[in-house]
Amino acid sequence: MKVSMMHGAGGEVMGELLATLTKFRNNNAGGIGLESLDDGAVIPFCGKNLVFTTDSHVVRPIFFPGGDIGRIAVSGTVNDLAMMGAQPIALSCGMIIEEGFEVADLARIVASMDEALGEAGASMVTGDTKVMERGALDGIAINTAGIGIADRVIRDNGLVPGDVIIVSGTLGDHGIAIMAHREGFDLGEQIHSDVAPVNGLMKNAISAGIIHAAKDPTRGGFASAINEMARKSGVSVRIREMDLPINKSVRSAAGMLGIDPLEVANEGKVVMGVPASDADAVLAAVRTHRYGKDAAIVGTVTAGSQVIMETAIGGERFIEPPMGDPVPRVC
Amino acid sequence: MKVSMMHGAGGEVMGELLATLTKFRNNNAGGIGLESLDDGAVIPFCGKNLVFTTDSHVVRPIFFPGGDIGRIAVSGTVNDLAMMGAQPIALSCGMIIEEGFEVADLARIVASMDEALGEAGASMVTGDTKVMERGALDGIAINTAGIGIADRVIRDNGLVPGDVIIVSGTLGDHGIAIMAHREGFDLGEQIHSDVAPVNGLMKNAISAGIIHAAKDPTRGGFASAINEMARKSGVSVRIREMDLPINKSVRSAAGMLGIDPLEVANEGKVVMGVPASDADAVLAAVRTHRYGKDAAIVGTVTAGSQVIMETAIGGERFIEPPMGDPVPRVC
Repeated sequence: MKVSMMHGAGGEVMGELLATLTKFRNNNAGGIGLESLDDGAVIPFCGKNLVFTTDSHVVRPIFFPGGDIGRIAVSGTVNDLAMMGAQPIALSCGMIIEEGFEVADLARIVASMDEALGEAGASMVTGDTKVMERGALDGIAINTAGIGIADRVIRDNGLVPGDVIIVSGTLGDHGIAIMAHREGFDLGEQIHSDVAPVNGLMKNAISAGIIHAAKDPTRGGFASAINEMARKSGVSVRIREMDLPINKSVRSAAGMLGIDPLEVANEGKVVMGVPASDADAVLAAVRTHRYGKDAAIVGTVTAGSQVIMETAIGGERFIEPPMGDPVPRVC
Repeated sequence: MKVSMMHGAGGEVMGELLATLTKFRNNNAGGIGLESLDDGAVIPFCGKNLVFTTDSHVVRPIFFPGGDIGRIAVSGTVNDLAMMGAQPIALSCGMIIEEGFEVADLARIVASMDEALGEAGASMVTGDTKVMERGALDGIAINTAGIGIADRVIRDNGLVPGDVIIVSGTLGDHGIAIMAHREGFDLGEQIHSDVAPVNGLMKNAISAGIIHAAKDPTRGGFASAINEMARKSGVSVRIREMDLPINKSVRSAAGMLGIDPLEVANEGKVVMGVPASDADAVLAAVRTHRYGKDAAIVGTVTAGSQVIMETAIGGERFIEPPMGDPVPRVC
């Protein structure tokens, strides 16, 4: 069997490949390890929770409306730590660069990473650089890994019936911005990626209430994230279509592209489940953050299984876990 | 200016590129950070020394005599931690795979990584997988990052006049094995990569005496490592050519290839500087380890600058820091 694009698309087919890749016997350092397939691993250390995560970034184009591969590289890893309830302490950066890549572009990427690090309050402390001969790599790939500390670890499997689902802002921006830009849509100008570090936003949320579960809806979008949370938690989730925050321009472009904005990557958003009693406080706290202005309560958790959408016209349908993100090289 | 192959070759030209890449202002988490360009970063935490490092691996061919990209990926990161005096607690793995890659080869790589993890006593706790479309990547690239703990941090800049230089075994095996294999030399069968995790060997060394400085002679080989140690320490080093352990087959193949075995990557070796009083004890301790059987004392540290070789025929020459490793895609 050969690896296909679907194997990297963040959906169900990717799950099959991961089953091969997670055959490590040596896969746990005492806490949450590889088999949990959570956003990060937890290593109990000195009475604290060290959180450790990694992400590789192969987005095309390298520079896009709202961001670039550098900003995604830092934000992606900071956000995976944040989803586990951790604030970042240190990041690493492994760059693989094609022979012939413009050093000026490299400098631009580094400056963008530095800006994102400053926003997140994190530091890039170690790195590695490899060069591949012309033709062996399309431009550049960046890996970041990160270490963070969490007081209380948040998992993606902690949803409980009665919980409320909150999304921190508009959905579909990043993936649709990338596709619209590639297709050369005029709309492209108005649609920007949401790529940003949201650890500050998570800090607000955590200080306002208990977060039972959190996940960042990257590859495969909101649909993938909410399904993974529901399945791992062993619950059902009911989402109200009318309450999902989606930018008008994103909705239009998605329609033109024939893509569901709920299935494409977001790079600066959180999906969280909180107890009903904490919902208003957490929502308010998230909304005070610059990246949480459009946060909304979008659904509830019940016993059962599956994710069900109460549609705008009063019907019901399943939100299926997507086979994969419809946008290749989206992050 | 465009990135060239020399920028990734681990030598002097790479230093120029790194000057661009290390323009991060946010580059230190309280200990040893990015500007030191050491094998890893140190993050003081809870009264201990957390060591953090990353490496990307793009070796070709993926499977070679003595190892494969998976074994290098684990060993490289375990060894960078070990050079700083740290034992590994957790590794991460970011895989970037070309569409069409054989899943059976992936499984083989994972099995090899798992074996190396077992040898090193480390765990792979988190990972990420991305797929790039056919033609956008030559097969596979693997990034590993690692966290370790060091009681006493060893730097690469701690050489002191009077110190003795010890290498843990034969030099040039990995790089020459790769090149001989690529050229289809009959000798290729007898020359194996030395790729292995040497944290156990370092543990022996550390328990036997003070290690003033250590470095693993990867890209750019022994010549690059010893020059970097000498320059950062502000000392001169005198190496005795007769005492350098080099396999006969490696020497022959290197001669045929027109390559200096002192300038090619080693993936399971340590170059260390120890006080003269500890030298015999450390040497003996290293030699008890399966990967240290050919360890040897090869030189001494003096005041001054430059690395000088006392040649086999009684003369003297400089060991220059190489412009880069002569073997592309060696690790």
